[in-house]
Amino acid sequence: MNKSRLEAFSDGVLAIIITIMVLELKIPEGDDWHSLQLLLPKFVSYITSFIYIAIYWNNHHHLLHTVKHITGGILWANTHLLFWLSLVPFVTAWAGECHFTELPVAAYSFMLLMSAIAYFILSRTIVAVHGKESVLSTAIGKDLKGMISVIAYALAVVFAFFATEISLFLILAMAVLWLIPDRRIENKLKEKE
Amino acid sequence: MNKSRLEAFSDGVLAIIITIMVLELKIPEGDDWHSLQLLLPKFVSYITSFIYIAIYWNNHHHLLHTVKHITGGILWANTHLLFWLSLVPFVTAWAGECHFTELPVAAYSFMLLMSAIAYFILSRTIVAVHGKESVLSTAIGKDLKGMISVIAYALAVVFAFFATEISLFLILAMAVLWLIPDRRIENKLKEKE
Amino acid sequence: MNKSRLEAFSDGVLAIIITIMVLELKIPEGDDWHSLQLLLPKFVSYITSFIYIAIYWNNHHHLLHTVKHITGGILWANTHLLFWLSLVPFVTAWAGECHFTELPVAAYSFMLLMSAIAYFILSRTIVAVHGKESVLSTAIGKDLKGMISVIAYALAVVFAFFATEISLFLILAMAVLWLIPDRRIENKLKEKE
Amino acid sequence: MNKSRLEAFSDGVLAIIITIMVLELKIPEGDDWHSLQLLLPKFVSYITSFIYIAIYWNNHHHLLHTVKHITGGILWANTHLLFWLSLVPFVTAWAGECHFTELPVAAYSFMLLMSAIAYFILSRTIVAVHGKESVLSTAIGKDLKGMISVIAYALAVVFAFFATEISLFLILAMAVLWLIPDRRIENKLKEKE
Repeated sequence: MNKSRLEAFSDGVLAIIITIMVLELKIPEGDDWHSLQLLLPKFVSYITSFIYIAIYWNNHHHLLHTVKHITGGILWANTHLLFWLSLVPFVTAWAGECHFTELPVAAYSFMLLMSAIAYFILSRTIVAVHGKESVLSTAIGKDLKGMISVIAYALAVVFAFFATEISLFLILAMAVLWLIPDRRIENKLKEKE
Repeated sequence: MNKSRLEAFSDGVLAIIITIMVLELKIPEGDDWHSLQLLLPKFVSYITSFIYIAIYWNNHHHLLHTVKHITGGILWANTHLLFWLSLVPFVTAWAGECHFTELPVAAYSFMLLMSAIAYFILSRTIVAVHGKESVLSTAIGKDLKGMISVIAYALAVVFAFFATEISLFLILAMAVLWLIPDRRIENKLKEKE
Repeated sequence: MNKSRLEAFSDGVLAIIITIMVLELKIPEGDDWHSLQLLLPKFVSYITSFIYIAIYWNNHHHLLHTVKHITGGILWANTHLLFWLSLVPFVTAWAGECHFTELPVAAYSFMLLMSAIAYFILSRTIVAVHGKESVLSTAIGKDLKGMISVIAYALAVVFAFFATEISLFLILAMAVLWLIPDRRIENKLKEKE
Repeated sequence: MNKSRLEAFSDGVLAIIITIMVLELKIPEGDDWHSLQLLLPKFVSYITSFIYIAIYWNNHHHLLHTVKHITGGILWANTHLLFWLSLVPFVTAWAGECHFTELPVAAYSFMLLMSAIAYFILSRTIVAVHGKESVLSTAIGKDLKGMISVIAYALAVVFAFFATEISLFLILAMAVLWLIPDRRIENKLKEKE
């Protein structure tokens, strides 16, 4: 299995997800400020998802950077991750359309939760293939950030049903956490050189 | 003809197919559980097609891995395969929308049947170009799995009209069969090394 | 300017065009044969356009194969070609939706005409950059097939308004003509080796 | 961080943006000249955006051509640019649909303004990473064209509300200005060789 083709396919899927979301931003019916204002929740939802996909693309790149062998396990763990991310345009549009009410926010959080779990499985699969002494394994270590995310998204799913604002706060807080560059893998790679 | 450009084009088409399917998952009209529940058949249909496209991408990669020369015949056999797979979003949405009634399930099965035949033609065309003694030829051998699939999808088309459940079972059974990794080509390649 | 990035961008655009056409194949409202039958003209239109995009992708690949330098002129001649091809999903859906009536068939023919002219301009621009003695120049020669196409599509535009069947025949005849592999460039390249 | 993967992702996003715009060109309801005529403003809008995306793709290519190291800063400056460009299909469809009335033209101009600023930030980030003595830095110099664009788009946003024609003129004038090939970077690169 060729690593560059796996990267190209994943990049393609992520590039399409991030771009077709705009098709769910239906054109306003009028040409006045009020029409545009009605789109506001959809824009907020759009921006959040855009940032999340960009973060996943970035992290995915770093994760695969250290990979040497692609096995069937890695391939399917990667497909599993892409599956959950492929639902981004759907939950983004739904949450925005409904002005962030309970169930759509829970659905959005659930997609983030499953994506985070899928990413965790993918990184573990890669570590299992490359050995505990590999660059990736020592770089990721206990993966605190990944674990915090999983817990935060799980809480966001639960809170969505009785305190939706907390879910929204958790989703945004995690986006900010991930925007802060993750130097673990980069640093470990530099040490090796 | 350049092999990497054929791969890149096929990957692009498959990445787009797997991703634009989500545009057919229309956003529920309400924000309650009932609205989401109505989407259930479309989700089932979506997941099945996602897995099938991933399987085709994976198999296609393995098939082309052994290819050395791209002829006009290989190119058009490949285009023929992409044509049938390009219909996946259409039959997926139709089957889900109609809750898996007779004709949509027959159409879905027919698409799978034609894709399997197209894949068979592509692999035979590649073998014909590279010779019976090539790695691919010995690796594929009689291609039992490909033949079983063709028969299963043909049966699924027929059964759709009087016992639709059997068609659905056949479609899922074949997906599971293909998810089990196909070590034939990989093993043969390793033997050669 | 990097040739491989121009190829990758063109391939990307062509892969997206060929794949998003399926989104214009709206799902039938019913699940019976009659509903499917109503889609027939759209399917015919879909298949025709699928073949044309595949032909353009194939020819485009051959054309760029011999290119050594990318100039601003080549880049914009290429963008001009992609512009006309980008309208394929639009004219395909319109012609199919209207059951091949006068104006939609004229529009479809006009898109083919402008694409053929754009392709001609692109090949001339490449020849102008690489010199009359280059492989491409001698291989293309007078480009009889390209000239026949331009005339045929121009006739198809005119005939659409009073004898639409002739237009449809011309469109299909040209597709068949182009499906026959164009060995000119390949042969010339082999001679050089 | 791998430069070629950043290029591939950006190319993918730009190729998708330029191609999915056609999905907003809704098929006319009739098959007569009048139906087609109603689409005219949408076509004008479509062509303008097609040219702008092509210009951005071309400029983006030149800008990255000189880049040696990709940092987190470059990556996010690039994502920021792609974000604003991802809104092109939305503002294109809205401006066309509303026949270029005040707010939609202001929105279109605002998207161009933010894209131009994002491009400026990206080029400054690259210069900051590579040093003032780098090829890129001397080639771009004061970037007069970039600055004129930012001012023109800012004026276009303002004029949209009381003299929309001036906004439209500014948008078209800038497109023409950018179509004129930018030889600065190319020339500087040649000098170095």
